[in-house]
Amino acid sequence: MSTDYDDAMRHALSLALRGEGRTGSNPIVGAVIIDSDGQLLAEGFHAGGDHAEVVAIKALGKVPAGSTIVVTLEPCNHTGKTGPCTEAIIEAGIGRVVFAVADPNPTAAGGAQRLRDAGIEVIEGVLSTPARFFNRAWFSVIEKQRPLFIWKIAATLDGKTAAADGSSKWITSDSSREFVSLLRRNSDAIMVGTGTVLADNPTLIPHDGEDVKNPLRVVMGNRDIPAGSSVLDDQAELLHVRGHDFSALISALLEKGVKQVFVESGSELGTAMVEAGLIDEIMLFQAPTLLGGGRSFIGDLGITTLDQRFDLTVLATRQIGPDIFTHLKVGA
Amino acid sequence: MSTDYDDAMRHALSLALRGEGRTGSNPIVGAVIIDSDGQLLAEGFHAGGDHAEVVAIKALGKVPAGSTIVVTLEPCNHTGKTGPCTEAIIEAGIGRVVFAVADPNPTAAGGAQRLRDAGIEVIEGVLSTPARFFNRAWFSVIEKQRPLFIWKIAATLDGKTAAADGSSKWITSDSSREFVSLLRRNSDAIMVGTGTVLADNPTLIPHDGEDVKNPLRVVMGNRDIPAGSSVLDDQAELLHVRGHDFSALISALLEKGVKQVFVESGSELGTAMVEAGLIDEIMLFQAPTLLGGGRSFIGDLGITTLDQRFDLTVLATRQIGPDIFTHLKVGA
Repeated sequence: MSTDYDDAMRHALSLALRGEGRTGSNPIVGAVIIDSDGQLLAEGFHAGGDHAEVVAIKALGKVPAGSTIVVTLEPCNHTGKTGPCTEAIIEAGIGRVVFAVADPNPTAAGGAQRLRDAGIEVIEGVLSTPARFFNRAWFSVIEKQRPLFIWKIAATLDGKTAAADGSSKWITSDSSREFVSLLRRNSDAIMVGTGTVLADNPTLIPHDGEDVKNPLRVVMGNRDIPAGSSVLDDQAELLHVRGHDFSALISALLEKGVKQVFVESGSELGTAMVEAGLIDEIMLFQAPTLLGGGRSFIGDLGITTLDQRFDLTVLATRQIGPDIFTHLKVGA
Repeated sequence: MSTDYDDAMRHALSLALRGEGRTGSNPIVGAVIIDSDGQLLAEGFHAGGDHAEVVAIKALGKVPAGSTIVVTLEPCNHTGKTGPCTEAIIEAGIGRVVFAVADPNPTAAGGAQRLRDAGIEVIEGVLSTPARFFNRAWFSVIEKQRPLFIWKIAATLDGKTAAADGSSKWITSDSSREFVSLLRRNSDAIMVGTGTVLADNPTLIPHDGEDVKNPLRVVMGNRDIPAGSSVLDDQAELLHVRGHDFSALISALLEKGVKQVFVESGSELGTAMVEAGLIDEIMLFQAPTLLGGGRSFIGDLGITTLDQRFDLTVLATRQIGPDIFTHLKVGA
């Protein structure tokens, strides 16, 4: 719990973020190697290939004696696509391992014990709260056996997503839409209902032009997706889940290795997912405008009195261009 | 527009704010006297008695030669409850006057000219934007012949002020309600419709316990206010404007010297005031909760398509306790 490693861990966390959307079913992880004075020697993050620890060790070639590795997740102790990080750390002669959160994955756990058995000093729990938050999607898969669902809503101040005649393009600003593109990039899948496909014909592709694999496109609902729809183009894979069975959706998503789903649906699917207890977080973009009438972003939740309200907690709120962006998690 | 006086003007502006809610029909004004090195010699603000300049001059007794007075509004040039500030400045031997905004009041204007005629150097326009904003209510009375109306709304994330059964206490948190108390204190009048009086029986009194005169209570609507209603107690004056004639409301408010009205009405009166073009600003408190159904904070505005939307601009947004507070002004 030493605060001596906080700065190095913050750096490792910032590195971890650079892997967001690129690690498939793996967690995002960052690692730094520091000398006994705390000076940075090497850094690494997981981007789908070597684990962060191995990236940092390889970057250095030979690790000086007395070095410490600071890593955002307990080093793994199993052989998957790559060998165990514990063995790489032992072999590199690293003297101390500092990590933020334990690996809850039964097949990968035991890393700390393996390191201690090899005579390496292990310190755990440094900045565990942000580290856990960064991998909350991965924890969701392991602990709840389902991906994390984040519902993105673009609405007016009075909670409307379209005017009475259905017009809705664009309620929020260019700045907000650019930010949404980043959020899509950081997701494994982008999901809408068939209604949105039929009404708006979205591409569900991040517009940042990055030359990496695009997130899976997921469309849920009974209706057919018309030939020529943008979601059928070759920019990304499409998963069409027929019907309204969320168990079938979750199974299909887990099979694809999806940890985090960015839900860009309209009111109907979003409300159904809230009622089913599937929405974990909401990212609300509010344009500074009023419509009075029109379509609300959420439908009837069966709530008749204030005590039955559906509570959330604000994680962050700020202006994005002219709009207000608020990130909330479900629960008081 | 020398930036040399920015710090002193910022200080003067912060002093001005301390008079908010205490100056009756007068503007809020702050003033500081500094020496030739910019060191603070004296300060003052208007709190209903002496003008800010006179408070600062009196605090000093004898003003050293070469002093500068920095004041948020052009010194007045007329004799009202007090003598002209221009004469007090000339008499004190102050060498330079720096002010932020010109006085638009025809009866008080001409101060800068009078000072220049007396051989005093005058610099105007320093931090004029915040200075104008601080007195926007006073400018509204002079320039638009009506008070500034700020609509306070406490709603859920989906824009509801009550659940389907009418339950609404308390949607927002203690922290938000404490902040509302401050906002009431900074207003000259607090207004609701008769519907709110009948439904909630509010006191419309700031709960900060300050030993100063409470804002005027204004109730608008045709229905009688029942005997025993809290707004009839002796904590503050009550103005009951019968009917729905906003011209009559404005005349009655101007007659009482009201510059700024804090509208705490429900949807009906608030929507009517928006439609009448009377709402200048909105202070929106959003609780991080969803109701799905229930009463919306705003009713039908006759808008059918997105292009007809009622645009606002975010002035500030931040978390207050668990809630999101957003201050907006009407207009793009």
